[in-house]
Amino acid sequence: MKPNAHVVKVLAFDVFGTTVDWHGSIVREGAVWSCEKKLDIDWSQFAERWRAGYQPTLERVRRGELPWMKLDEIHRGILDEVLVEFKVTGLSDEEKDQWNGVWHRLAPWPDAIEGLVRLKKHFIIATLSNGNVSLLVDIAKYASLPWDAIISSELFRRYKPDAANYLGAADLLGCEPDDLMMVAAHPSDLKAARECGLKTAFVRRPLEHGAQPAGTASVSAAPGAASDPSAPAWDVTAADFIDLAAQLS
Amino acid sequence: MKPNAHVVKVLAFDVFGTTVDWHGSIVREGAVWSCEKKLDIDWSQFAERWRAGYQPTLERVRRGELPWMKLDEIHRGILDEVLVEFKVTGLSDEEKDQWNGVWHRLAPWPDAIEGLVRLKKHFIIATLSNGNVSLLVDIAKYASLPWDAIISSELFRRYKPDAANYLGAADLLGCEPDDLMMVAAHPSDLKAARECGLKTAFVRRPLEHGAQPAGTASVSAAPGAASDPSAPAWDVTAADFIDLAAQLS
Repeated sequence: MKPNAHVVKVLAFDVFGTTVDWHGSIVREGAVWSCEKKLDIDWSQFAERWRAGYQPTLERVRRGELPWMKLDEIHRGILDEVLVEFKVTGLSDEEKDQWNGVWHRLAPWPDAIEGLVRLKKHFIIATLSNGNVSLLVDIAKYASLPWDAIISSELFRRYKPDAANYLGAADLLGCEPDDLMMVAAHPSDLKAARECGLKTAFVRRPLEHGAQPAGTASVSAAPGAASDPSAPAWDVTAADFIDLAAQLS
Repeated sequence: MKPNAHVVKVLAFDVFGTTVDWHGSIVREGAVWSCEKKLDIDWSQFAERWRAGYQPTLERVRRGELPWMKLDEIHRGILDEVLVEFKVTGLSDEEKDQWNGVWHRLAPWPDAIEGLVRLKKHFIIATLSNGNVSLLVDIAKYASLPWDAIISSELFRRYKPDAANYLGAADLLGCEPDDLMMVAAHPSDLKAARECGLKTAFVRRPLEHGAQPAGTASVSAAPGAASDPSAPAWDVTAADFIDLAAQLS
């Protein structure tokens, strides 16, 4: 399951969902907003809707219908739509900006820091995310993530899964594509990385979209988090970052 | 001497000479090469010549006579010239690459890590260097420098002191130019940063070019390390990074 994994020099990590828990963080901060603003909102649905708006906007940028934008701006635009849908009115622009800042205050998965600290001893560890640089820097500071480098699609002005990200990261980090392993909870990210010659590590994040209500479909049906049984095996499949560190060292 | 220094959010550090001791590191590794290769070389002069070749090459790139190149490539090209000048023969390409790698193995100034750790509690701390990204990442790992972000002229394909670096760093780090303070031992770097609206911190590095022989001109005559009495005062002038941390907190 891990052919040549030992020759990898650099690990590039997806961030949202793979390294940090965006869903749970928004739900937790939403509870505070509910108190402050006397709102009765299902923050899990609110978080899902906010995140779900991201891919269609990226598609419009890819098609040239919108100019390239930082993810912060994309999140802010979607927030306006979500507020209307959830019938939240009366927020000032400053308050909306403050809510949008929740994406800078995301908690790491419980294993993330320990796993990264272990991996950092043996590998260069970098982000490779559609988050803009300052967003990723703020998350790293908030969540104490010990990255060696912040690599962002902002540097290439192309969002993942555009090949410019995977090949550009290898070039910037001074290695060949097959010296670089993409670590992500999302098969689409890993597939694109593999097509560029990168190695791949799939990390399971069954709670990316929150705990599923009893009796509903399994978490593998959650968009983006699904494992893909039709895909060939990844170089490594790990339960979390600590397991990844154990498998790679 | 420090108007509004307290409103700064981000510190951008020059690396070679300001954060790490390239001269001393090359002299120390040169002593090992002398042993291995039975060479009788003044490594201080060798280091100065290697470093001095950098600005003329950058000028040729700026004028379009040479394509944009990573600093690693520039160092490697200058090494070929310096080896001829110092009559070092018989090195394989692999050995030359290994020698060139000394720029990835530079020691921090004695105050650098402690100063950066203190500053990191209050500010985002990033590199802003003409070194390419992977060179800066390797130095950070070798020297245990706790950067929040690696910002390099490679991201803009323009070397400092081109304004693209200072304005580009502010944009990537999500702040206005005057929220960003350039920290450097080189007035030319700080002058260019100030012209872009950045704040400036001058850190004295009297030993950047090694200890001066007794009776010679003062270290202020050393190229690049000179303070410039005709320049208006910088926002902060510090003896080292620990002093900088004390002044800014």
